[in-house]
Amino acid sequence: MPRPVLLAGASLTPFGRTRHKLLDLLAQAAQGALKEAGLQDVDALYLGVMNAEEFTGEGNLAVALADRLGLGGAASSRVETASSTGAGALESAFFAVASGYLQNVLVVAGEKMTGLSTRATTRILAEVIAPSERRYGASMPALAALIARAYGRAHNLGEDQLRAVLGAVAVKNHARGALNPFAQFQKPISLEEHHAARPVAEPLGLFDCAPITDGAAAVVLSSRRGGVRLAGMGHATDSAAVTRRQGLTSFNSTRKAAAQAYAMAQVNPQEVDFAEVHDAFTMFEVIGSEDLGFFPPGQGWRAALEGRTGPEGERPINPSGGLKARGHPVGASGLAQVVEAYWLLTGQVDAARRLPREPKVALTQSIGGLGNNNLVTILVPASRPLHQPGSWQTSFSLPLMPLAPPRPEPPPGEVTGKVLACTLLHTPPEGFTAPLGLAMVRTAQGWLTLAHTDPEHQPALGSTVLLRLEGGLFRAVQVGDLAGTWLRTRSAWRRLPTSLRLWRRRLSR
Amino acid sequence: MPRPVLLAGASLTPFGRTRHKLLDLLAQAAQGALKEAGLQDVDALYLGVMNAEEFTGEGNLAVALADRLGLGGAASSRVETASSTGAGALESAFFAVASGYLQNVLVVAGEKMTGLSTRATTRILAEVIAPSERRYGASMPALAALIARAYGRAHNLGEDQLRAVLGAVAVKNHARGALNPFAQFQKPISLEEHHAARPVAEPLGLFDCAPITDGAAAVVLSSRRGGVRLAGMGHATDSAAVTRRQGLTSFNSTRKAAAQAYAMAQVNPQEVDFAEVHDAFTMFEVIGSEDLGFFPPGQGWRAALEGRTGPEGERPINPSGGLKARGHPVGASGLAQVVEAYWLLTGQVDAARRLPREPKVALTQSIGGLGNNNLVTILVPASRPLHQPGSWQTSFSLPLMPLAPPRPEPPPGEVTGKVLACTLLHTPPEGFTAPLGLAMVRTAQGWLTLAHTDPEHQPALGSTVLLRLEGGLFRAVQVGDLAGTWLRTRSAWRRLPTSLRLWRRRLSR
Repeated sequence: MPRPVLLAGASLTPFGRTRHKLLDLLAQAAQGALKEAGLQDVDALYLGVMNAEEFTGEGNLAVALADRLGLGGAASSRVETASSTGAGALESAFFAVASGYLQNVLVVAGEKMTGLSTRATTRILAEVIAPSERRYGASMPALAALIARAYGRAHNLGEDQLRAVLGAVAVKNHARGALNPFAQFQKPISLEEHHAARPVAEPLGLFDCAPITDGAAAVVLSSRRGGVRLAGMGHATDSAAVTRRQGLTSFNSTRKAAAQAYAMAQVNPQEVDFAEVHDAFTMFEVIGSEDLGFFPPGQGWRAALEGRTGPEGERPINPSGGLKARGHPVGASGLAQVVEAYWLLTGQVDAARRLPREPKVALTQSIGGLGNNNLVTILVPASRPLHQPGSWQTSFSLPLMPLAPPRPEPPPGEVTGKVLACTLLHTPPEGFTAPLGLAMVRTAQGWLTLAHTDPEHQPALGSTVLLRLEGGLFRAVQVGDLAGTWLRTRSAWRRLPTSLRLWRRRLSR
Repeated sequence: MPRPVLLAGASLTPFGRTRHKLLDLLAQAAQGALKEAGLQDVDALYLGVMNAEEFTGEGNLAVALADRLGLGGAASSRVETASSTGAGALESAFFAVASGYLQNVLVVAGEKMTGLSTRATTRILAEVIAPSERRYGASMPALAALIARAYGRAHNLGEDQLRAVLGAVAVKNHARGALNPFAQFQKPISLEEHHAARPVAEPLGLFDCAPITDGAAAVVLSSRRGGVRLAGMGHATDSAAVTRRQGLTSFNSTRKAAAQAYAMAQVNPQEVDFAEVHDAFTMFEVIGSEDLGFFPPGQGWRAALEGRTGPEGERPINPSGGLKARGHPVGASGLAQVVEAYWLLTGQVDAARRLPREPKVALTQSIGGLGNNNLVTILVPASRPLHQPGSWQTSFSLPLMPLAPPRPEPPPGEVTGKVLACTLLHTPPEGFTAPLGLAMVRTAQGWLTLAHTDPEHQPALGSTVLLRLEGGLFRAVQVGDLAGTWLRTRSAWRRLPTSLRLWRRRLSR
């Protein structure tokens, strides 16, 4: 039997843009958690930082922090799982305490992102994307936008309806952020403001994307004392490339991690009183609400629209304001969610932030990379029995999606496919001109690929395109229903590859 | 009771300069370990890479590797503890299995370092040094050189004797590397070659420093099967800055980690049949042989000279050739040591590589940063009883060194101090001219500092210097016994600060 793992203290720094150095932020959060736990020393420190090397040029940070905190030589490790790093560090610390070898462990997670330009930050963040997709200029917002469009198409949502769903998430989270003294944005927004915001990667606008943030979070895990028990912990990966996934509207890594966490905690989705869900992009909260078993697949959007994930709803999501409003220092977010869960479970929030029902079970979900390194944790009051009476049965039964077949090597010169999603990326990486047109295409052979599109003539969702290799990258050229209209434009005609014109001539014979 | 943790498979790539990508190296090592363990899937992957972000520009590597290996969504985390990263990843995996939550875990560690220039690589490696020391232009070899000189002075070794000790380590490790098909350098060297080699940071020459290397290592940990048991695991940190340590000739982090590992394994230093010790610099092997309790403090140099750490000696150290000859891909080395230990314990080496006595207990020691994030592991055959009969008593009793008092803030303008060590760094970081003269000085107030010195007039060890702040950094100006001779040089006289001249005038009245 593993040892029970308790949370004995938790702390956050205010999230936002700050002049403080990363080490200062980490130390501030750590000291808060140690103080609440009544500890001056611990057996080990687990530090979650995604990429201090490039954001701030610092190495060996775990030691620098242990030294700064005067931890007297405690074992110090840095853990990284892309944008779920805070939860990743928590998991390693969890195992260390559960093993029985360590009694008190400090977990600290943070990131300092505002020291660089937005362009440099975006480039660094894009390093977590699979190289096969990065070379198309696909950034995190671009891939999230494609997933949003694919979700809309899969569930027959018109563009306006999709935007209304995304807006509902943004408005809800900003309203909660307005109550949270630690949030980067403490101002509610209206649906109109959401819709009118600057587009980032269509259909995602500024209010659909979590901001660039500095901040740190810390918790103390203990086998001896603490008011909350870390009852379940799940962690799973998915294909690095989004284009290897048959299903774009669900994350295998969440489903698998959730199944593990529910089983370890002997808890079912219906028992979760509130959840902190990784809303780096508003769409991800909707998908998460399905992957975690809160709503059936394809119903998350409706739940969001109907307010069922609001503080008064049946399954409150992101009472903190989420990554959207609290801010998203990439290394910190996964642990900041756990701090919020701890605070709500122990009642350490202002009256305005309390939920209508006193919560007994909390869940947090953190996404690493583009939905491929996800963790789920379940927290309960320490007084809850270790195992529920009677034989516990899981009600969580979401299967994993199969992988799409890999692209043949070498890629064929010309293939046709169907457009699953497309986006216009307004701030593409260096080397690409704005706006950058990108499409997700399922080929006739079944494999998926990204393709560049003409930004002035985006292909319609569901339409058939010809994929042509240009400099090793696919360009989608529209054929089928819309081809007639489209070809009337002279400039577009000139852009058409010769082979397509020949092929069209063959077709019209 | 934690679950026993067994090693079920281990593998290395050949170490050296290669055209393979980092992911290829990691996958190759992983596949070897999985094959030996007879597993196609595992519960989790722990990846140790120190700084892929800057060495190769890759992020989210744990997922990329899990995906490449087809691990079907296994939880994947990257762990980093500076240059002990391979051992750090092993520790996190160890706790995961010991907790009982995971059964089979793959640990992979590697680094790709030869893709950049030596200068860029040195800059990246220097990020692990405390900022207060990095600003003096102190690189890893520079600090190791200061430690070597301090060791020589502490134990009354003349410069020639010190070089003979360092040479003995290099010659021994190169001789072993010559037998190791995985080593970067498979050629013995002579003591003359050692002494004649290009100086790096005096007294350290080219053959005293581990090379820049590409390579990867992997092991499979299992609670179910395996021929070797990971019986002890210790991990401790020390002050980030070397100048905060009262004792320069011993590493607290090794002593503390060793005490933990010996206690967990119920093993004493005298029972260790061979050890892989972190010889990134030859001096570190000598210090390690004392800190691990193999020889009394101050006797490691004699043991090295007398061949007592050779394959025929009482305590063979680095039968693999060590970091010196096998190579030092920073993220991989801590795990490569464990692979070597596993191979020797299970007899999976050529006859020429076997040790005279069949080994029953192996120890590995890995150093992170400048001796401030160290891990010690102890491996025994799986058949060895979990606890030794009778009440086990530790014979390991090395105390931790006290910290030096911190430097007062703001630092005083002029202070005097005694030179503990000095070096000439022949390839200093950008912004410094070669050779760079550096000294380690203990001030009259007791705090330690680095100081720049005149490279043409290095102060003598033990001499008194005046420390003068120039642009926020101390410069050591020699006074005392040698001052008379030294001041005769006109150019040196001109460099003297006015205050010292006035002070000298006062003295001569």
